[in-house]
Amino acid sequence: MAGYVQHKEDIIRRLRRIEGQVRGVQRMVDEDVYCIDVLTQVSAINAALQSTAVALLDEHLSCCVTEAIAAGGDQAKVKVGEASKAIARLIRT
Amino acid sequence: MAGYVQHKEDIIRRLRRIEGQVRGVQRMVDEDVYCIDVLTQVSAINAALQSTAVALLDEHLSCCVTEAIAAGGDQAKVKVGEASKAIARLIRT
Amino acid sequence: MAGYVQHKEDIIRRLRRIEGQVRGVQRMVDEDVYCIDVLTQVSAINAALQSTAVALLDEHLSCCVTEAIAAGGDQAKVKVGEASKAIARLIRT
Amino acid sequence: MAGYVQHKEDIIRRLRRIEGQVRGVQRMVDEDVYCIDVLTQVSAINAALQSTAVALLDEHLSCCVTEAIAAGGDQAKVKVGEASKAIARLIRT
Repeated sequence: MAGYVQHKEDIIRRLRRIEGQVRGVQRMVDEDVYCIDVLTQVSAINAALQSTAVALLDEHLSCCVTEAIAAGGDQAKVKVGEASKAIARLIRT
Repeated sequence: MAGYVQHKEDIIRRLRRIEGQVRGVQRMVDEDVYCIDVLTQVSAINAALQSTAVALLDEHLSCCVTEAIAAGGDQAKVKVGEASKAIARLIRT
Repeated sequence: MAGYVQHKEDIIRRLRRIEGQVRGVQRMVDEDVYCIDVLTQVSAINAALQSTAVALLDEHLSCCVTEAIAAGGDQAKVKVGEASKAIARLIRT
Repeated sequence: MAGYVQHKEDIIRRLRRIEGQVRGVQRMVDEDVYCIDVLTQVSAINAALQSTAVALLDEHLSCCVTEAIAAGGDQAKVKVGEASKAIARLIRT
């Protein structure tokens, strides 16, 4: 089960806004808008994506990881290791 | 003038692919795909956005900044300062 | 209790190496080494710091957060929220 | 010649402060300080390193790259390409 299920609409709303921002940048490039203004907008998209990732991670820790730990057993370790790897990927990009 | 004008199609193609990736993540969330798989995809989008930003910056330095410096005068300093600020924003997001 | 206690020596070894790298960059700057070579070294330090942060986070989730969740009660939520905020700070820097 | 030569002392001062912060984190780990507090400090070091990198890049663009472009010829392109690669490394770490 997905940990974000209770905040699914919020996540989808964020992603739709990001999609709109990406389309906005396409239009900017199509209209030869000045590079620096395009880059400012790309930075804003990156920040919005990172916030969405943090929200997803928070749900994942609060739900999936918490449930696996509460249930005990091998799955707890697996889930924590998996979360650490996902965090590492986000920190490095 | 936009520095990326000669590689406009490449930039737009990258942005369309990113738009497709963002829509793909919306579908994943809509279908309750496992959080970690969603996060892996978000990291991939972040990496793609960063590559696009680097491509834009490279064009900007090669064209706009280079022209301003070659022309001499005050504009050269302004352009370099502006580029540094855009780089700082990208590094911090 | 600190979650990294069992890998304390590894963490300190990493930090000493990073300290050495920072001193190395000071020497480079003192000897007027070419900017790009200094920057390459700064990127390497950043990567080393991020790996250390990921190792610390992994220990924190495996120990402190896992224990709080296993113990149940309010502390579990507090620890997860705190971890999410630390992750957010690392992603944004 | 190094582009940062005129602000060498400022750069070295920043690096010394970062070295002190890294040593501070070693002490924290040695004294079993709580993981989250260690991580907050690691994020602060990362931010300080990034600011230093941005300062170095700004000097590099204002001096080395500007001089190469003003002199004209092949070196201008080489310097711009080199700067773009250094920026890409900083954005990705």
